[in-house]
Amino acid sequence: MFDRFASHLVRVPEIGLTLDVSRMNFSGDYLNAMAGPMGRAFAAMSSLEGGAIANPDEQRMVGHYWLRSPELAPSPALTEEIGRINLAIKEFADRVHQGSIRTPGNERFSQVVAIGIGGSALGPMLLADALGQPKLDRMKIYFVDNTDPDGIARLLEDIGSALSTTMCLVTSKSGGTPETRNGMLLMEQAYRRCGLEFARHAVAITMPGSQLDRVALEQNWLARFPMLDWVGGRTSLFSAVGLLPAELQGLDTAALLRGAALMDVATRQIDVSKNPAAMLALMWYHATGGQGKKDMVVLPYKDRLLLFSRYLQQLVMESLGKELDLEGRVVEQGLTVYGNKGSTDQHAYVQQLRDGIHNFFTVFIRVLDDGGSSLHVEPDITAGDYLHGFWMGTRQALSEKGRESITISIPTVDALQMGSLIALFERAVGFYASLININAYHQPGVEAGKKAAAEVLTLQRRILGILTPEPRTASQLAQALNFVDAEAVYLVLEHLAANGRAMMVASDDPRETTFSSST
Amino acid sequence: MFDRFASHLVRVPEIGLTLDVSRMNFSGDYLNAMAGPMGRAFAAMSSLEGGAIANPDEQRMVGHYWLRSPELAPSPALTEEIGRINLAIKEFADRVHQGSIRTPGNERFSQVVAIGIGGSALGPMLLADALGQPKLDRMKIYFVDNTDPDGIARLLEDIGSALSTTMCLVTSKSGGTPETRNGMLLMEQAYRRCGLEFARHAVAITMPGSQLDRVALEQNWLARFPMLDWVGGRTSLFSAVGLLPAELQGLDTAALLRGAALMDVATRQIDVSKNPAAMLALMWYHATGGQGKKDMVVLPYKDRLLLFSRYLQQLVMESLGKELDLEGRVVEQGLTVYGNKGSTDQHAYVQQLRDGIHNFFTVFIRVLDDGGSSLHVEPDITAGDYLHGFWMGTRQALSEKGRESITISIPTVDALQMGSLIALFERAVGFYASLININAYHQPGVEAGKKAAAEVLTLQRRILGILTPEPRTASQLAQALNFVDAEAVYLVLEHLAANGRAMMVASDDPRETTFSSST
Repeated sequence: MFDRFASHLVRVPEIGLTLDVSRMNFSGDYLNAMAGPMGRAFAAMSSLEGGAIANPDEQRMVGHYWLRSPELAPSPALTEEIGRINLAIKEFADRVHQGSIRTPGNERFSQVVAIGIGGSALGPMLLADALGQPKLDRMKIYFVDNTDPDGIARLLEDIGSALSTTMCLVTSKSGGTPETRNGMLLMEQAYRRCGLEFARHAVAITMPGSQLDRVALEQNWLARFPMLDWVGGRTSLFSAVGLLPAELQGLDTAALLRGAALMDVATRQIDVSKNPAAMLALMWYHATGGQGKKDMVVLPYKDRLLLFSRYLQQLVMESLGKELDLEGRVVEQGLTVYGNKGSTDQHAYVQQLRDGIHNFFTVFIRVLDDGGSSLHVEPDITAGDYLHGFWMGTRQALSEKGRESITISIPTVDALQMGSLIALFERAVGFYASLININAYHQPGVEAGKKAAAEVLTLQRRILGILTPEPRTASQLAQALNFVDAEAVYLVLEHLAANGRAMMVASDDPRETTFSSST
Repeated sequence: MFDRFASHLVRVPEIGLTLDVSRMNFSGDYLNAMAGPMGRAFAAMSSLEGGAIANPDEQRMVGHYWLRSPELAPSPALTEEIGRINLAIKEFADRVHQGSIRTPGNERFSQVVAIGIGGSALGPMLLADALGQPKLDRMKIYFVDNTDPDGIARLLEDIGSALSTTMCLVTSKSGGTPETRNGMLLMEQAYRRCGLEFARHAVAITMPGSQLDRVALEQNWLARFPMLDWVGGRTSLFSAVGLLPAELQGLDTAALLRGAALMDVATRQIDVSKNPAAMLALMWYHATGGQGKKDMVVLPYKDRLLLFSRYLQQLVMESLGKELDLEGRVVEQGLTVYGNKGSTDQHAYVQQLRDGIHNFFTVFIRVLDDGGSSLHVEPDITAGDYLHGFWMGTRQALSEKGRESITISIPTVDALQMGSLIALFERAVGFYASLININAYHQPGVEAGKKAAAEVLTLQRRILGILTPEPRTASQLAQALNFVDAEAVYLVLEHLAANGRAMMVASDDPRETTFSSST
């Protein structure tokens, strides 16, 4: 085994990261056999990095790699723009920290609420949790990543009177994401109720000219930072979306960018044995038959990396979960990701991983530096030794039962390593998308749900418009609206009734349940 | 569709919960066809509840249902014991809240650190998050659920000087769980460093007579609460494991128990059309072919239920992920669970769910009461309407593409509903285990990893014993130890070196990397 381990170990000495694929059961000629497809993946990536329209459906360039190496952007104007934005972020955060940007009450801002969803939340949340140091952080960060009024109320309860020194970042690329808009409006209401002016606490991160950008401009918000057309939501961590909250928290964004840039250099190498992103993509292809036939369980043995699998769910599943290939053929592709952390998950579902349905492979993340207390909990053994031992034990227990695993080792969890880890998976996703011949950079499947939701809200308005004191069934109301879907009418009314906006007299049979106006 | 919805809706009027299976594509005769197997599942459950040895491998009764209905326990002594423990929990928490149990510094305890892993963490974490109200909670709760020294150090940084008024709950059924023991030892060290005596802050929850129990007794801890032999870790939420932290936080444990008891009554009904647990189990069987062929994506549309899928990962996967059936035949069973919350996850992986690989079904949890602000974010539309509309829209978008879903509707997220939801899934797991003929109450597969980890720690001690200033390769050291696995020697030493306990001179080829003693 040591020979297999050593001969296939992918090392990135500049970062201290290694990728161990010795517990993947690929055959000796697999890598050679994949040289052709992998060569095409390198060519596609090179073209993408050169500024090609790599997202053909949306006719967009895909430029997240330029964010950490602006000198590689396809035009001097873009290079200059990236540098200018990053400088503005740094200057703004400095002024907030130094107290030259203050609250209307002339106090220092003490904390941040970041409002955003999807790519505008998962990356910032991951960084805040992975790199936060309660005693050293310049500002504490909270997140609003949903349109749940109860969730926002609970956050406001937690913040309490500190709202007066709380800054709000509102992040939406299009500027029209309803969850983010709603979060902003509910936060604005909370400020107003405390006699505070939201605009004097608010910062926008959005595409110039968006609806959000216009509101921020009109209301003279504290600042506006641009999102760029050629950066997708799920790869926006190294743009203002990730950098501004990280800077405000006091994280080392320079190291974050450097880590990503170093990984980009390493993963541009054509030699697969030295390229962890190419090797990762090839292992995904091997494990899943190039068809997502196995789930990817991501198990970092480190509390700080708890949110990494949730971040990867978006990066991987939204990028790879596609109906059509690049030629428009139906392929229904994807790669399912889940996981929390080790050794904790050993006490949750490793029972199934080892003994049960063989529908997964594992990506372990191993962190060499234990940190914290080095107390000997037994002679010569620390708590960190246990954590490391549990990783080794679980890897072996899975391996014995033919369950494959990959291990990524990193020296520690810091900004440089986080930058490099994220860049590693970004490029692995790009390579793998080439191997399976899909567009990794659009998300056509999310529109249907949004459209259906908008129709529900339209239906709700129409229902409220015809509701009278006379009790009627959902079918009767649907008929009155000339609307075919009585079930939808029922569900909308059931929700309205639960919130005091309709009267409901429930029957054993929902078809006989009646609704009327609430007053 | 409304007819299908109405005719298959399972209602539990006493709780206000409904289960909608109209978007599952089972045929008209499916439920009849399953009457036989389901009848056997009811019989097995009835026997379990009557006190049979329902966990044959471990020769144990399975009694978690008695915890919320002590009068149903198979002996008056057990009934009395449950009542006595619950009373003791309540009295202890009251005395802490009233300040008659105080810190050695004569202050009131202000917060709790709960140390435990798996079943001793996931349930308490779920309740704390789902039911917590920052302004009203009597005590704040933190969790240590791993053996990560860095994670514990970060928590201690967060707690700061409040450690002097912090109580520690140490929860381990066997009393020998290494992660929990290590967490306890590191917390003990932290107290000691602050000049505080851990024992005066500590409470044990464990099996009487366990190692932990003996330590707590010897050191005269604040209190000890028993765990019972016939309650498994993943169903221990309604024992002291869940009730004590919940009581300390100030949650309504009486309502929690009542909700579970009400659901137990509802799910004992033989009429499947009125029994949501039976219907849920039958739908899992339908969706996965009784072989776990599809993953279960759990999507609650409510921030407070974020941890529910993580809780279910353990309950479902550890119970159902089994190699052997009850006759000892290899079946490699299971049911994979993942998910976070809606509408947030729509911006993460719903792209794949709708368009990509069809390897899942969804369980939506719909909460009727919005809570929080009812601000109209658009005419007649609240943020809560959006949340509800997104659920409807996503359900429909998935349904259009043949992706099946179940929806559980509950009126609100409170203690009664949480008790009922958990009891619903507990019994669904029990029924489903009968349908697929496996033992849901043991976890033989986790031993291998623990054993392998113990061997790693033994190996580490042996390595440390022979390490000298002379640099040697992993293979040379393995040979010196007469140990066959040089890779393991390498990995252990790499970790020791990263933590200053060995010297490493890295080579491009790990086989040539040398190690020596660090001094």
